[in-house]
Amino acid sequence: MSSVNCHLFCLSVYYYRFHKEDCKDVARMIMELAVFEKMPDQAKISHEELERDGFCQNPFFECLVAEVSDEHRSKDGHTVVGYGLYYYTYSTWKGRSVYLEDLYVMPEFRGNGIGKGLMCKVAKVKKQCVRLQLAVLDWNSPARDFYAAKGAQDLTDSEGWHFIRFDGLSLDNLVKDAPKD
Amino acid sequence: MSSVNCHLFCLSVYYYRFHKEDCKDVARMIMELAVFEKMPDQAKISHEELERDGFCQNPFFECLVAEVSDEHRSKDGHTVVGYGLYYYTYSTWKGRSVYLEDLYVMPEFRGNGIGKGLMCKVAKVKKQCVRLQLAVLDWNSPARDFYAAKGAQDLTDSEGWHFIRFDGLSLDNLVKDAPKD
Repeated sequence: MSSVNCHLFCLSVYYYRFHKEDCKDVARMIMELAVFEKMPDQAKISHEELERDGFCQNPFFECLVAEVSDEHRSKDGHTVVGYGLYYYTYSTWKGRSVYLEDLYVMPEFRGNGIGKGLMCKVAKVKKQCVRLQLAVLDWNSPARDFYAAKGAQDLTDSEGWHFIRFDGLSLDNLVKDAPKD
Repeated sequence: MSSVNCHLFCLSVYYYRFHKEDCKDVARMIMELAVFEKMPDQAKISHEELERDGFCQNPFFECLVAEVSDEHRSKDGHTVVGYGLYYYTYSTWKGRSVYLEDLYVMPEFRGNGIGKGLMCKVAKVKKQCVRLQLAVLDWNSPARDFYAAKGAQDLTDSEGWHFIRFDGLSLDNLVKDAPKD
């Protein structure tokens, strides 16, 4: 439990590793984030898929959520108001790494340090990881400034790394072209 | 086993999931790739670390290697001449994904379809993944053209995604700033 000050009240925030029953809240916020990122039609995940992939034998991801007390619930009645979804990756230069896929706080709860709290908690999860990485959209200046202020490097600017994606037909074609075993 | 034509001889290439004893070859090629990427001082991984992290209970990565027959070994005597190192990630929009961290073929074996063979084999590994993603340096035109010709999207160009990294001091500071449990 961590207390932070905001303008109107002392807001207590509880950060914890998500449980199956949090998947509905996470799915809801994934959609809210897609709307913010101006790509609402891209988010297709259901809370059932999150449950399946987050609670299988070798989970594909882990997630921390931020919860406020019932008295501070959102205007729509939500108490789970932010999440950080992450997984482990691997650098062939440095070894074990963490990738923060999504970091989100509901608009009415921003400015209370919850985003920073989630990010720092994710950084703390696995100490033997030597990197925490993530992606940000170029027009999202508040987020870019936030990461830069915390000492992060923008590797697209400094080294020229670009994201490449195969999906749909281009991925099917790769599979079809694979050499026979 | 897959046969491909090249200028001088019929080169047979065998693709397989790496074994512990391949880690020395993979570590050697990781260093060769870092030299090609003009960042040779960045690669710090040892074959012991690859063994530890690739063969633990929940491995941090998987790897396919390309092997040629002894008669076609490299001028330095190597028969393992390429690798594709990958792991599973997660899209909160689409679900299970594969990330191809490294794709490398030794210079003297390029032009024989081995890079494409490795990439297609990786794409085939896990069919329920809906994406194959990777990163490429902006000045590496041969690789960028290769991916584009296969139908990949450059998400940095088309949507504006940038890579952000915390490591060293900036990562230590995040951990230090984490809210108390």
